[in-house]
Amino acid sequence: MEQRTIIRYDGESLSETDDQIATEYAMTIYVNGEEFATMVCTPSHLEELIIGFLASEGMIRRVDEIESLEINEDRGFAYAELVNKSPAGREFHSKRFIGSCCGKSRQFYFQNDVKTAKTIPKKSTIPVRNCLSLMKKMQESSTDFQKTGGLHNAALCTTDDIVIAHSDIGRHNALDKIYGHCLKNRIPLKGKVIVFSGRISSEVLLKVSKIGVGIVLSKSAPTTLAIELAHDLGITACGFIRGNSLNIYSHADRITE
Amino acid sequence: MEQRTIIRYDGESLSETDDQIATEYAMTIYVNGEEFATMVCTPSHLEELIIGFLASEGMIRRVDEIESLEINEDRGFAYAELVNKSPAGREFHSKRFIGSCCGKSRQFYFQNDVKTAKTIPKKSTIPVRNCLSLMKKMQESSTDFQKTGGLHNAALCTTDDIVIAHSDIGRHNALDKIYGHCLKNRIPLKGKVIVFSGRISSEVLLKVSKIGVGIVLSKSAPTTLAIELAHDLGITACGFIRGNSLNIYSHADRITE
Repeated sequence: MEQRTIIRYDGESLSETDDQIATEYAMTIYVNGEEFATMVCTPSHLEELIIGFLASEGMIRRVDEIESLEINEDRGFAYAELVNKSPAGREFHSKRFIGSCCGKSRQFYFQNDVKTAKTIPKKSTIPVRNCLSLMKKMQESSTDFQKTGGLHNAALCTTDDIVIAHSDIGRHNALDKIYGHCLKNRIPLKGKVIVFSGRISSEVLLKVSKIGVGIVLSKSAPTTLAIELAHDLGITACGFIRGNSLNIYSHADRITE
Repeated sequence: MEQRTIIRYDGESLSETDDQIATEYAMTIYVNGEEFATMVCTPSHLEELIIGFLASEGMIRRVDEIESLEINEDRGFAYAELVNKSPAGREFHSKRFIGSCCGKSRQFYFQNDVKTAKTIPKKSTIPVRNCLSLMKKMQESSTDFQKTGGLHNAALCTTDDIVIAHSDIGRHNALDKIYGHCLKNRIPLKGKVIVFSGRISSEVLLKVSKIGVGIVLSKSAPTTLAIELAHDLGITACGFIRGNSLNIYSHADRITE
């Protein structure tokens, strides 16, 4: 977050004022010495972000599969050495998945998602009122969002409180920071919930599945493909959590009255 | 947009209801026979989307550089043959740009942006009241957004009316559809304005610059990097256009009282 002098129109006249703007930062990640990806992100919790991103992309499953991780924050470069030295080519990771059925869902369109997405067994439930209060808690906890209006929030929660919350200008990054935190600290995920400020696209739904959480609560709308994946992967997806109401799009039996 | 049966909690009880959900669709683009990228998008105006995306990525500058474009909408594949037969490797296009100065801005971080971003000469102005009314017009014109809550809107406008508006679940796609429309129909861009529902990230700002428009009006927040690029590339960036107020972040002399 940085201060900038801007010009504001208040309905009557233009005048100079100071404003808080969300920082955008580019970080290029090298894996085993090879350029892997450039992420545009909020420069906080970069280690969690990189760990979560590498896991999301199917490069690692556990944090001990990273031999070393060096982050040069000033220059915006990070160097990860993995135990697995096979080529890290980013190409494969965005390759279109073409197959009749992979045993999990027919809805995948990237090859690495087929490898990494998990089906979540059904066990835990959450009262509907807690869905509303967790969203409220997460939004109130993000003062940077309140100041800049330019950040997405994600939180890992128990059924009644926040465990960890992260913000980022990129909605996927906010989830990757949560994922990285879980892997780094071996957070048990049974009975946990993910609360998220952004829309539930298929990519968001897949990230929730990869993290291994069975309930995702969003302030915003889902897409058709995300709902289909949620059905197939056993995830309860709730959206439009605003004030006293919400919508349930899949596996509604995890939500109790 | 598709209808789904969902469960809604209204603050008192859970009940079944029908809802409109934004369609998410995956399309894989082959360029000169080689897999180039998979886009996740709203399946409308796919030709415009592909043209705009290829131009954005620096693969073409004009629409006549596309020899043929075949879209298989049912299967989600598109095949573009370009006049230029050099390899289309997507890799290069997301390669980190490392340089002291490229004559336009020190803020670029992707190599293809250095090639394709344009500095916009200063000429046209727009009254501040028109910025407010254009945003209102665009939002009111998008009935799908109103029904699903899951779409981004972008519009190319004169200083007082909409020329063309497009929606997409992906904010960059909405802008690529505008870009593709402009290239396909050789729309003159002098004095035009882009109105956008999403945040102004560096990527959004760069797309506006590539399209060749000098004023971008957003409902949402900008990032620090987008403001720096706007300064360097001569673009007037306005954000938080809501009701009767707005913020101007760069080149405020294009906005008149």
